[in-house]
Amino acid sequence: MDAGGTKLLGAAVDGDLMVRHRVHRFWRGADRQETLGIIQDAVEEVRSAAPDVEAVGFGIPSLVDFAQGRSVWSNHLPIHDLPFRDLMSERFDLPVVVDNDANAAALAEHRHGAAKGSEHAVLLALGTGIGGGMVINGKLYRGANGFAGEFGHMVVDHDGAECPGECPGRGCLEVLASGAAFGRAGQIAASKAPDSVLGRRLADGHEITGGIVTELAHAGDEEARSVLAEIGCRLGSGLVSIVNSLDPEVIVIGGGAVAAGDLLLDNAREVVADRALPPAGERVRIVPAAFGDESGMLGAALLALEEGAA
Amino acid sequence: MDAGGTKLLGAAVDGDLMVRHRVHRFWRGADRQETLGIIQDAVEEVRSAAPDVEAVGFGIPSLVDFAQGRSVWSNHLPIHDLPFRDLMSERFDLPVVVDNDANAAALAEHRHGAAKGSEHAVLLALGTGIGGGMVINGKLYRGANGFAGEFGHMVVDHDGAECPGECPGRGCLEVLASGAAFGRAGQIAASKAPDSVLGRRLADGHEITGGIVTELAHAGDEEARSVLAEIGCRLGSGLVSIVNSLDPEVIVIGGGAVAAGDLLLDNAREVVADRALPPAGERVRIVPAAFGDESGMLGAALLALEEGAA
Repeated sequence: MDAGGTKLLGAAVDGDLMVRHRVHRFWRGADRQETLGIIQDAVEEVRSAAPDVEAVGFGIPSLVDFAQGRSVWSNHLPIHDLPFRDLMSERFDLPVVVDNDANAAALAEHRHGAAKGSEHAVLLALGTGIGGGMVINGKLYRGANGFAGEFGHMVVDHDGAECPGECPGRGCLEVLASGAAFGRAGQIAASKAPDSVLGRRLADGHEITGGIVTELAHAGDEEARSVLAEIGCRLGSGLVSIVNSLDPEVIVIGGGAVAAGDLLLDNAREVVADRALPPAGERVRIVPAAFGDESGMLGAALLALEEGAA
Repeated sequence: MDAGGTKLLGAAVDGDLMVRHRVHRFWRGADRQETLGIIQDAVEEVRSAAPDVEAVGFGIPSLVDFAQGRSVWSNHLPIHDLPFRDLMSERFDLPVVVDNDANAAALAEHRHGAAKGSEHAVLLALGTGIGGGMVINGKLYRGANGFAGEFGHMVVDHDGAECPGECPGRGCLEVLASGAAFGRAGQIAASKAPDSVLGRRLADGHEITGGIVTELAHAGDEEARSVLAEIGCRLGSGLVSIVNSLDPEVIVIGGGAVAAGDLLLDNAREVVADRALPPAGERVRIVPAAFGDESGMLGAALLALEEGAA
């Protein structure tokens, strides 16, 4: 189960990472009890289709105390200070493992995806916000308290706008380059160019989402392409910080926004090549997630397989 | 030997970290041959006073390939692409170990100083530039190529000024909060307030250095204190990025600029408390280096003792 800021994605996954019985749920605005109810309902739906489920892995958009299975704090869901693992384990009478959603995604991409074979890798998941995870010396690194990898809350503009959600920061990378930022920038671009395809969509009463911007950019709309290019540059500034701080072999870009592909990543790569310290910036690879926006779900399954199942 | 961007600091150090026969050299503007000559001369001076030296450890302000003992690239000294270890080992006929200067400082502070007892620590050295090093799971972490820890080149102002030195970046933390930045900000503050103590120093023909700003701030000059407070805030933005990315137990602030003490660090701590993700920001400690600006020298000696001496 991969619980993101906007939606939940789940499935039954076997030891060969074969995926069956996908479930989806949306929960914008749900309170704590509703959120937990939606999660429970999604798990039950998968279990009724796949009664042989042996353990449940969760990636959640929280700072997680991994050893305790506790959701300590969340920027995007009302699940602060919650003994998530024990709560879910009791509800399902199954072993449960819980980690930060982007940590789970980093694990899947490192084991079987775009970072396979590397010892030092970073994953950024561009969705409602920007999640992050990292592999250090071949293993997932969680920091002193389990809170490491929140690269979306690196400050890239120290006098910048307040971060949305619960984050008390300003000018965070998440403000400038998340999937939600695609939509905000697209909205502005559409207002400024009412005769563009993007502008006409807005005039026709559509909400300009990241998905629409990406779709129009792939179809060739210059306005939409400019939005992605600009966000790619901002993303690049964040990647420069990561490259200079951590010297990874590979940075994997995942989450829903990776649908933008090279329309986003080419500019990010160019900023890294131009502005990171030369030897590190020249050597790092910046690649899309092999599992697209399913990395988190697969990583949660890997955690369940490895740490949850008897 | 700790070779910084402006000066070299060396000594004979024994297994109990007793320091004898300190040497100092300055090399602003020296070319490659002169720089290497100054280093050689300083080592010879120590050896003539302490003929029982068994190995030489170097911290250098470079991206270092540690396994090869190679200086790959340097922002502040003309020692790019140089087989530093082998060159020095040949000159002295002694075992030589070389690492990034701030990695050496992080090692000393982790083993015997302000980060002792922690498993997850970051060191920032505020001098001519900003160096950095980190301890992950109790060990120095160097990244994929040996280039990790360059926190001074995290982007904190993505449309900001060009980074001085060889760095191709913009808006790097080093531009905003290094020891050299103290002097630049002090110069501006002095020009704006010609009747302040700081302003009169400038009018008297003194160059406003970081050292003068710090000295006047400790003596109570409000203008100088404002300079340190403002730089403390900027430093805080960088620390927010580090806390959210790496979730360390402790961040040690070293280098010459640590002489500013709490006049600098109090504001940095306040920004972290206000703007980092709450649980990580509340738990991290931000402390001055126990060895002041000698952490790098002591760390270089530790490297020589552990990896160089027979």
